[in-house]
Amino acid sequence: MLEADFKYIIDTFFALFAMVLIIFMVPGFAMLEAGLVRTKNVTSVLTINIMIYAVASMAFLLLGYALAFGSWENDSMSKWAAFLFQMAFVGKTINIMSGGVSERVRIIPLAMFAVVMGGVIYPLVVNISWGADMLAGTFLDIDMYDLAGSTVIHSTGGWALLAAIMIIGSRKGRYQNGKIRVIPASNIPLVVLGAFLLWIGWFGFNGGSVGSISSVENADAVAKTIMNTNTAGLAGAIIAGFIMYARYKLFDITMILNGALGGLVAITAGPDLYDMHTPILIGAIGGALVVFAVPLFDKLKLDDPVGALSVHLVNGIWGTLAVGIFVDSVSFMAQLKGIVVVALFTFTSSFIVLFIINKISNFRAEDDAQVEGMDVNECGVEAYPEFKRAI
Amino acid sequence: MLEADFKYIIDTFFALFAMVLIIFMVPGFAMLEAGLVRTKNVTSVLTINIMIYAVASMAFLLLGYALAFGSWENDSMSKWAAFLFQMAFVGKTINIMSGGVSERVRIIPLAMFAVVMGGVIYPLVVNISWGADMLAGTFLDIDMYDLAGSTVIHSTGGWALLAAIMIIGSRKGRYQNGKIRVIPASNIPLVVLGAFLLWIGWFGFNGGSVGSISSVENADAVAKTIMNTNTAGLAGAIIAGFIMYARYKLFDITMILNGALGGLVAITAGPDLYDMHTPILIGAIGGALVVFAVPLFDKLKLDDPVGALSVHLVNGIWGTLAVGIFVDSVSFMAQLKGIVVVALFTFTSSFIVLFIINKISNFRAEDDAQVEGMDVNECGVEAYPEFKRAI
Amino acid sequence: MLEADFKYIIDTFFALFAMVLIIFMVPGFAMLEAGLVRTKNVTSVLTINIMIYAVASMAFLLLGYALAFGSWENDSMSKWAAFLFQMAFVGKTINIMSGGVSERVRIIPLAMFAVVMGGVIYPLVVNISWGADMLAGTFLDIDMYDLAGSTVIHSTGGWALLAAIMIIGSRKGRYQNGKIRVIPASNIPLVVLGAFLLWIGWFGFNGGSVGSISSVENADAVAKTIMNTNTAGLAGAIIAGFIMYARYKLFDITMILNGALGGLVAITAGPDLYDMHTPILIGAIGGALVVFAVPLFDKLKLDDPVGALSVHLVNGIWGTLAVGIFVDSVSFMAQLKGIVVVALFTFTSSFIVLFIINKISNFRAEDDAQVEGMDVNECGVEAYPEFKRAI
Repeated sequence: MLEADFKYIIDTFFALFAMVLIIFMVPGFAMLEAGLVRTKNVTSVLTINIMIYAVASMAFLLLGYALAFGSWENDSMSKWAAFLFQMAFVGKTINIMSGGVSERVRIIPLAMFAVVMGGVIYPLVVNISWGADMLAGTFLDIDMYDLAGSTVIHSTGGWALLAAIMIIGSRKGRYQNGKIRVIPASNIPLVVLGAFLLWIGWFGFNGGSVGSISSVENADAVAKTIMNTNTAGLAGAIIAGFIMYARYKLFDITMILNGALGGLVAITAGPDLYDMHTPILIGAIGGALVVFAVPLFDKLKLDDPVGALSVHLVNGIWGTLAVGIFVDSVSFMAQLKGIVVVALFTFTSSFIVLFIINKISNFRAEDDAQVEGMDVNECGVEAYPEFKRAI
Repeated sequence: MLEADFKYIIDTFFALFAMVLIIFMVPGFAMLEAGLVRTKNVTSVLTINIMIYAVASMAFLLLGYALAFGSWENDSMSKWAAFLFQMAFVGKTINIMSGGVSERVRIIPLAMFAVVMGGVIYPLVVNISWGADMLAGTFLDIDMYDLAGSTVIHSTGGWALLAAIMIIGSRKGRYQNGKIRVIPASNIPLVVLGAFLLWIGWFGFNGGSVGSISSVENADAVAKTIMNTNTAGLAGAIIAGFIMYARYKLFDITMILNGALGGLVAITAGPDLYDMHTPILIGAIGGALVVFAVPLFDKLKLDDPVGALSVHLVNGIWGTLAVGIFVDSVSFMAQLKGIVVVALFTFTSSFIVLFIINKISNFRAEDDAQVEGMDVNECGVEAYPEFKRAI
Repeated sequence: MLEADFKYIIDTFFALFAMVLIIFMVPGFAMLEAGLVRTKNVTSVLTINIMIYAVASMAFLLLGYALAFGSWENDSMSKWAAFLFQMAFVGKTINIMSGGVSERVRIIPLAMFAVVMGGVIYPLVVNISWGADMLAGTFLDIDMYDLAGSTVIHSTGGWALLAAIMIIGSRKGRYQNGKIRVIPASNIPLVVLGAFLLWIGWFGFNGGSVGSISSVENADAVAKTIMNTNTAGLAGAIIAGFIMYARYKLFDITMILNGALGGLVAITAGPDLYDMHTPILIGAIGGALVVFAVPLFDKLKLDDPVGALSVHLVNGIWGTLAVGIFVDSVSFMAQLKGIVVVALFTFTSSFIVLFIINKISNFRAEDDAQVEGMDVNECGVEAYPEFKRAI
């Protein structure tokens, strides 16, 4: 057998393996968000997760992939596998955004935005970062190192979310009389399940982003990437738990999980480049950032029921900078420039698109609908119709 | 290393990978059905799912596999991996059937039927479609193209379900005074989780059915199969959501998920043969068929709490015909003949076996037991004993 | 390509595949235990599961792995993949222990124990069983066959649990006036989901323990291991269901699942060595042992809310002995000696460490806290705040 054929076969198989792991993030995000919102909004959140996966992936198939990479051709593995691996990423960016506007966002305009994001905005970010590079030779050309998307996926989703929160506003009753009303998560086992499905999906996300496992060097790089990814998640969980306990003598499980996710986001830009101990530091800082960012965004009245700004935006930035800090061969300024260019493009384009869609169909549900719950108003289906409500 | 050894190793690994994905469909079906039934029947449905996997797989190990394939020998991969991949399919057929008679079926007779289905009926369907082909040379010989079982798995399960509904009847109170009583799903997050585990399992189901990934051509075929499978699911979800919204201005999440599953069933007969756009049409028609078939079966008073007839029987037929319509090299008449032969065999044999078992041990629970709930009557364990019931 | 490179690549890929399956056991244990305890203790159990994974894996990274194997070097696959596969095991031992002391154990001392167990105790068990073998040449040298840890993982966790129950005692109100108070599981779908995630994880656990898939012989061994593993689980479920039905005319789902898990534990010592029918017997005996052991431990007032002693300790011993009974080339006495040496070391060291930690920070929650629930006292977060309690 030709070595090239061997590599083609193994790397196709490996890309499919990685893609399957990433697809577990679809129920992962769905369960995480369904657990974090109130029971009256659970069906709505779940419907949004399904529709995002459906319409954004379809838009990427029909338009986005070609926009990002210029061509479907691929020599190193099956072009269908290469597409599937990239397609598995698309919905994530929009999930990050949709989660943060839960409990007041309407489905129709969100589905419209998902089409534009999956078909155009995200593919253009990929184009200038990983893909055909239409900015090559211009002063905006990006040269950052971002293996699996601390910036390309996570802060992209975060900037879109920031624009969305500015347009949609906070949930009715969340900030009243200068106080922040605490709204507890309705189903903690779902939150845990979702967080772990995300964690497992991350192995495919980051490991698969190495792009090949078919040489000894690449096999090492993939394995090290997965190890470092996991280590940063562990560190993020530990530090978040430690801080919460030090402050309140209580282990706040949602903060621990968001700490883990923060660590995972932070490591995503360069998990293949670090030695085995650096991810502990990067993940720990990531987890700590989450703990401190969550109340900060609340002070700014940026209402984000799932903590997505803290997890994805803050740590997407931190993780991208971290590569510039800890890896000698990577320029800090190149990382910074990449972050800024992607931020400007994503925030601006998302804001404009959101603004236009908002004129066509309101993103924000009426106050009455929010009080009654998004589920009966948007879906006609309650999540748990047989369970009597205590609150 | 010999090329044959390389292929043996890779294809064994790939079959195990595919098998693991399919096994995720066991909790997939369990969660889907547990979410769709009322809380008083949840433990019963879950117990049925476990028992089916256990007894049907065991029957297939001890009898069915040899009946289907004539021999355990296999040259192209480990014979144990070949068995595991086939074994992972067995329970699905019976899951399809058991889900549709939920909320009134008793466990003991169902377990008996699962033994016969896993040990004899399903293996004979495989024998004449994919296996040793005992009908070869007779006028009943089947020559249909059914890569991963639109007919062999899905409509087989559907015909068995139709026979079962005819024998067991509808749930007490479902059709009264000419009206259909709407019985809402009790736990929507479980429905979503289950549907996505099924979706992911389908990648193994269809991708693994290519049978080999160890050449460049096969690697392409596997990747394309998985891409097309996913695309049909996307299209099914989108069209079902669109139809529901157009009609009711509401996004009915269970219909969207059943639409996705309908698209997945429909693509299953020929995902390797289509170009990348045809699955959009096939999946969309599949999703639409579900939306229109669900009320139709209710008009016929075929009570099917999970929509299995619409998803698996209707789309199993549609998907098998679709290969004959869209692929030039496949004969429409051969597809039709395959559908009819399998239908006649499966429906008749299932009906007879169900009828006999029903004489030994009633399939249908007493009305009182149905009202009280199958859980306390059959399992002695409530699903959510601490949650107060609202209805 | 060199054959050695091919093997390195494939075995690295395979170890990562197996590792990912094992990591599914993290949410697996979490869901299983969250479903088995009362709603007031669900968040606590989940937090414990997360913290164990985090701190034990970190301790293994920083200390335990080197202690177990003497070195990080590995020639046959990426050393990072070899580490990840071993790391995926670590938390399991402590999960077994923590599950059994649910509903009264405090998080802080448990996290301390997890550090010691993951960093020292478990690595030393691995050292003498699978690793650097510091006892080589002494009269305590172990020569048992334990492919994937019936003893090294499961009874190790069981002995630690026995020590923990002796120190921590039973839940308040569990044994009163000579009676055993039945405390029902609060969420059966979670129990089922968790059990099946464990089942799937077991394929990676046992299959991956073969250590290589890159030769025809090894590919066969891996596939056979997974087949036999699954068969034993099937048999355990069937026999437990059969016994419960014979006794009570009811299918107790938690017993069926624990029967399956018992079968899986029992097969774990030698799934590669048996023919395809022996696992039926081993798994059936395993399932039966669970059914009879559960009430026995209750008679001994060893309060174990999840049945971990019956599943993991009893069947860990049975499974290790079974290899000596059914495999000619394996010495029964060597198996027995391995069991005894590991038991003495694990029980004694765990007891001492638990005893010391207990002096620093009480393992057992106050009676009032137990009555109110561990969640509000330890986590400040209720699992299902919106659902009204019936009991």
